[in-house]
Amino acid sequence: MLIVQKYGGTSVGDLERIQNVARRVRRVRDAGHQVVVVVSAMSGETDSLVAMANALSPLPPEREMDMLLSTGERKTIALLAIALTAMGTPSQAFTGRQVGIETDSAHTRARIERISGERLRKSLAEGYVPVVAGFQGINAQSDVTTLGRGGSDLTAVAVAAAIQADRCDIYTDVDGVYTADPRIVSNARKLDRIAFEEMLELASLGAKVLQTRSVLFAMRHGVPVQVLSSFTDQPGTLVTKEDAEMEQLSVSGVTYDRNQAKVTITDVPDQPGVASRLFKAISDANIMIDMIIQNVGHDGCTDISFTIPRTDVAKLRSHMGTIRLDGSPLTIDVDDRIAKVSAVGVGMRSHSGVATRMFDTLAQNGVNIKMISTSEIKISCVIDERYTELAVRALHDAFELGVVPGGTS
Amino acid sequence: MLIVQKYGGTSVGDLERIQNVARRVRRVRDAGHQVVVVVSAMSGETDSLVAMANALSPLPPEREMDMLLSTGERKTIALLAIALTAMGTPSQAFTGRQVGIETDSAHTRARIERISGERLRKSLAEGYVPVVAGFQGINAQSDVTTLGRGGSDLTAVAVAAAIQADRCDIYTDVDGVYTADPRIVSNARKLDRIAFEEMLELASLGAKVLQTRSVLFAMRHGVPVQVLSSFTDQPGTLVTKEDAEMEQLSVSGVTYDRNQAKVTITDVPDQPGVASRLFKAISDANIMIDMIIQNVGHDGCTDISFTIPRTDVAKLRSHMGTIRLDGSPLTIDVDDRIAKVSAVGVGMRSHSGVATRMFDTLAQNGVNIKMISTSEIKISCVIDERYTELAVRALHDAFELGVVPGGTS
Repeated sequence: MLIVQKYGGTSVGDLERIQNVARRVRRVRDAGHQVVVVVSAMSGETDSLVAMANALSPLPPEREMDMLLSTGERKTIALLAIALTAMGTPSQAFTGRQVGIETDSAHTRARIERISGERLRKSLAEGYVPVVAGFQGINAQSDVTTLGRGGSDLTAVAVAAAIQADRCDIYTDVDGVYTADPRIVSNARKLDRIAFEEMLELASLGAKVLQTRSVLFAMRHGVPVQVLSSFTDQPGTLVTKEDAEMEQLSVSGVTYDRNQAKVTITDVPDQPGVASRLFKAISDANIMIDMIIQNVGHDGCTDISFTIPRTDVAKLRSHMGTIRLDGSPLTIDVDDRIAKVSAVGVGMRSHSGVATRMFDTLAQNGVNIKMISTSEIKISCVIDERYTELAVRALHDAFELGVVPGGTS
Repeated sequence: MLIVQKYGGTSVGDLERIQNVARRVRRVRDAGHQVVVVVSAMSGETDSLVAMANALSPLPPEREMDMLLSTGERKTIALLAIALTAMGTPSQAFTGRQVGIETDSAHTRARIERISGERLRKSLAEGYVPVVAGFQGINAQSDVTTLGRGGSDLTAVAVAAAIQADRCDIYTDVDGVYTADPRIVSNARKLDRIAFEEMLELASLGAKVLQTRSVLFAMRHGVPVQVLSSFTDQPGTLVTKEDAEMEQLSVSGVTYDRNQAKVTITDVPDQPGVASRLFKAISDANIMIDMIIQNVGHDGCTDISFTIPRTDVAKLRSHMGTIRLDGSPLTIDVDDRIAKVSAVGVGMRSHSGVATRMFDTLAQNGVNIKMISTSEIKISCVIDERYTELAVRALHDAFELGVVPGGTS
């Protein structure tokens, strides 16, 4: 098999851990596989570079920040290639540029536009283990760019797609994807497999295992991704195309997100174009809206509610303060003591009654539902924040996701 | 004027010093000049990277070492560009690759083959202060290479040549080129100007201000180089084309080198081809020979003496031990308690009697001359090491190089 392995900053945090990673890579290679490794900067490195830049400037130019930050991953690839070679496993280090990762010019949050993989295939054919710097690419001006949060995962998936790898293994500090957050739900179960679509919903609903755009990239290019721990030898969770086995479950996981706030704008004139004017203003401020509800009008007026990231509340207030719809300022009501709980599963497509069971379960536990949104494979409810744990545990039980005590699943 | 400034590791050793460099750059720019800056890694950075590599491998692959070491300069260029921009002087950081420094593939000691400078001219035209990573380039395989010792000086001179700069200022921890080592000769005088050829001899004779190949590159491309201190505001020494003013002095400087050993091979058959066989063996072992003397033969045999770097004595012994000229091993005699003292000056071309004065001066001070070598602009004598300081001071006086007490030169 041709396997891409990605190790995060904690896994390569010091020289000893780099040697552990090298041993792990060598084992997989000795078992007869071809391996390409993608690594992040050593943990702490990026923070220390950011601190240096901030000591020099309140607002460092983004092009120069990318140059600075990209040194972190370059250091790790050289050190890991040196460690592998010293163990008798010939290895070559490659920057994002060298493996042909071309991005747009949005410094600090660039998007991958192309990746060639030619140099990697050559290195593999010559018997090397290529070690690739995550998180970085190069734009059309031949300047270094970085890919933003979760960028190294994205590099790994993109590299796997470019060389048509059989699998992309993302080593992290958790050992897989769970039916629910194990810190909240004691009998949460690690999933062996999960569909791309489910992982995508889980990622965008607040599960921190993989970033949305890495999952999207993997799904688009059909790259099976395994999430697993670099501190154990257990298999993790395989994120892959939906298959027959998965469909037996109606719901695969229950998740929650406490980083949202519910905003209500009251007494909005109930006229065509008003809502679009409001939402254009919000989008101009680069604020992402999640759910929207427009209430039934009364006396020619209506209320509009929506959720936004809690961190954007101040930005929203200052932006909306300037808007006049009928001469008077908007009445803005913010409730940031909310949480969004969601049930996700491709099985919903063939199982009816998932929504009913979710609403019933919340009602039986005295949890009031403030907003609802659904997609083909997920149902989300906004509830009072203090019921978060209660709701997640109740739903996890209701959908029979837990480990059967003494059983095997 | 268009000026290239180069700052070494000590000058950019911490964030405060980087800000000092930024202020100095800004002053020169505010005075109406265009500036390109070349920087080394922060002092200590390269050593720490080397230590990490050595902890992982007794013999790290050179390609990977270059990748690792090149991160040091990249960090400095980003930080200096950030500091300059924060002071209101827009700046852009560039790697060796980005300014088009193409080298051969001799990792850790690459030679510059081409440099385009196109990107630099564009950056200057757009009003930026370009900050360039010293010490690094890229080979035909698009791998990072490093230029070896003194590599950042070489980058600065090469950049100056590529953009046809009016001057290349090398900031260092000494404030110029002296008539002799000021630690030995108390009235040594800082030279205002010195010819490329003289600087070349001084560099190859052990003066550590500039590396030979940087001077060679500057001479070949006619780039005036100023050596000066980044801790004062005094002008330094200008290394430039020979001019009328310089020729008034017969000798410009006296220098010494204690890193040599004198090797004598006795009872070598006095036949054609024997010497060439010996010296081929030495050159095959990558040992640089400096001076050679072949004594007059006796009984069909002769003695051959030569000097080599003291650090290569062990290598020479192990290499010569295998050579048999007439069945028996060579008799090798090593004297490593020697020093080479030299007088250098383009004025020698038009002043006769320099050699005589040198030999007389040494004789008057009771210093025996063991070997002599001369070029058009220098005379070197190998002497007993313990007379080094005595000889240097006596020659400095004999050629009237010192500061006249109370006078101006």
